[in-house]
Amino acid sequence: MKTLIVFLGTSAAVPTKNRGLPAIALKHGADVFLFDVGEGTQYRLIRAGLSPVKVTAVFITHLHGDHVFGLPGLLQSMSMYDRKTPLHIYGPKGLAYFVESSMKATGHKPPFEVSVHEDLNSIVYGNVRIRRFPVDHGMKESYGYVIEIYKPLKLDVEKLREIGVPVRYWSTLQRGRDIEFKGRTIRARDVLIERPPVKIVYTGDTRPIMRTIEEARNAEVLIHDSTTADDLAEEAHEEGHSSAGDAGRIAYLAGVKLLVLTHISARYTDTRTLLSDAKRYHSNTIVAEDYMIIPVD
Amino acid sequence: MKTLIVFLGTSAAVPTKNRGLPAIALKHGADVFLFDVGEGTQYRLIRAGLSPVKVTAVFITHLHGDHVFGLPGLLQSMSMYDRKTPLHIYGPKGLAYFVESSMKATGHKPPFEVSVHEDLNSIVYGNVRIRRFPVDHGMKESYGYVIEIYKPLKLDVEKLREIGVPVRYWSTLQRGRDIEFKGRTIRARDVLIERPPVKIVYTGDTRPIMRTIEEARNAEVLIHDSTTADDLAEEAHEEGHSSAGDAGRIAYLAGVKLLVLTHISARYTDTRTLLSDAKRYHSNTIVAEDYMIIPVD
Repeated sequence: MKTLIVFLGTSAAVPTKNRGLPAIALKHGADVFLFDVGEGTQYRLIRAGLSPVKVTAVFITHLHGDHVFGLPGLLQSMSMYDRKTPLHIYGPKGLAYFVESSMKATGHKPPFEVSVHEDLNSIVYGNVRIRRFPVDHGMKESYGYVIEIYKPLKLDVEKLREIGVPVRYWSTLQRGRDIEFKGRTIRARDVLIERPPVKIVYTGDTRPIMRTIEEARNAEVLIHDSTTADDLAEEAHEEGHSSAGDAGRIAYLAGVKLLVLTHISARYTDTRTLLSDAKRYHSNTIVAEDYMIIPVD
Repeated sequence: MKTLIVFLGTSAAVPTKNRGLPAIALKHGADVFLFDVGEGTQYRLIRAGLSPVKVTAVFITHLHGDHVFGLPGLLQSMSMYDRKTPLHIYGPKGLAYFVESSMKATGHKPPFEVSVHEDLNSIVYGNVRIRRFPVDHGMKESYGYVIEIYKPLKLDVEKLREIGVPVRYWSTLQRGRDIEFKGRTIRARDVLIERPPVKIVYTGDTRPIMRTIEEARNAEVLIHDSTTADDLAEEAHEEGHSSAGDAGRIAYLAGVKLLVLTHISARYTDTRTLLSDAKRYHSNTIVAEDYMIIPVD
């Protein structure tokens, strides 16, 4: 199943002419998972060709306004278009108060169930598992998210050839069904190989921490806070953020395939320094741009 | 002093590809007054070349989410850019709860004073008077706003010529100072004529009501709810809105100079029917578009 990472907003704290407030969509088959919902996300979903009404679930990293102020409007538009499917929203403590008070203040009663989960660490949607891990943003609760996409089990072709099972039986085994062959039972589970899930990690806002290295081990894509270039690393750390070099070091140590720098401070109209600071440690690095799409297999 | 009406969002309820959620800026000299702050307003101010940080005051028509969900993010950006000037926000009961709960939920403590006024009917900024009037949107409190821009008093040139005051004294009188001329005192107040203020009226969301005709009498610009074309007028009224023809009739009866149709339902990608429905009653009518600017002298 095709998976796309769609960057909807890549700025830090305030929007700029070219960068919107934080939001990332993960499109996986018919599902769209949203990570952070900065102001303007519903506009950006429309422009990206994704329906704001059909978002499957929402994951919030932390309760700073630039990461959540698009949520009340998104819920209202879902109501206007008469969504019926329940919406599950995952995030830190205080998220339910934020969602409920915005609805109360505006007399908004959605025609669908809105469930806010503040304590759930892990959730599975089909073959996608999404779990959070604590990061260090200098506040009580701030999370990164690990998205694992499980692939169908793979037939152990070598083994099948060894046993001599004809190709016409393979698809049955692939579907997980046992077969009888030459008076012998071939169990599907004996000829199917598990494959490691494809891993995508989004840190949200964080200082550089060891935990991210552990969580991002062998990830396909690591989307890391990169608020400043390295010359302002100290300022970034004080504010609970990372520099581009921090992100590069973590990506290198975790052995990730692709590093994507995001949460770019409004002071950078030119991001070449950010890129070179990160590339000193991890060459396969890009800077996120709004509406950038990364396909993941 | 040059006054500009800048349309930042002209859609109803939900944004479309071309129309953002309701927001209108009135730029008058160095002041920028915001009327409604739909989600995305801070982005739109930037794109319109207006600073989100320097907004003078905010006026909210009513507490539906599409008219206020841009406010928390606007306040946060003002904080990020270290605004010091107090911000006054005017609107219906419940507005303070909305503003305060959004700040509480996100741990946001602005470095400037935020004052929410729920009961103030009229306020004067220099030569601009802004007052609200109740409209009928089928909810407890919903307001329209009348903006009156007072012009400097005008010299009564005919009278001055009659008395025989030489032109070199005129600017002194214009500044409101009395002069001595041929042993006689000429009082400025006797040779200065008051001019009627330039009036701009914004209805917010409303059914067609007589009160709007009264308030918009001889207005330079009437910005009226025009959610649907006339064939759907009944539906518009049920939802607390007006049709284009309703707006046209009111503009005609009030004798306004220019009617601007706004709050256009997302169902219209082509607005020609709206325009012709309104023009049947009032020929000087236009349909608002995002980023449209109307200069008012």
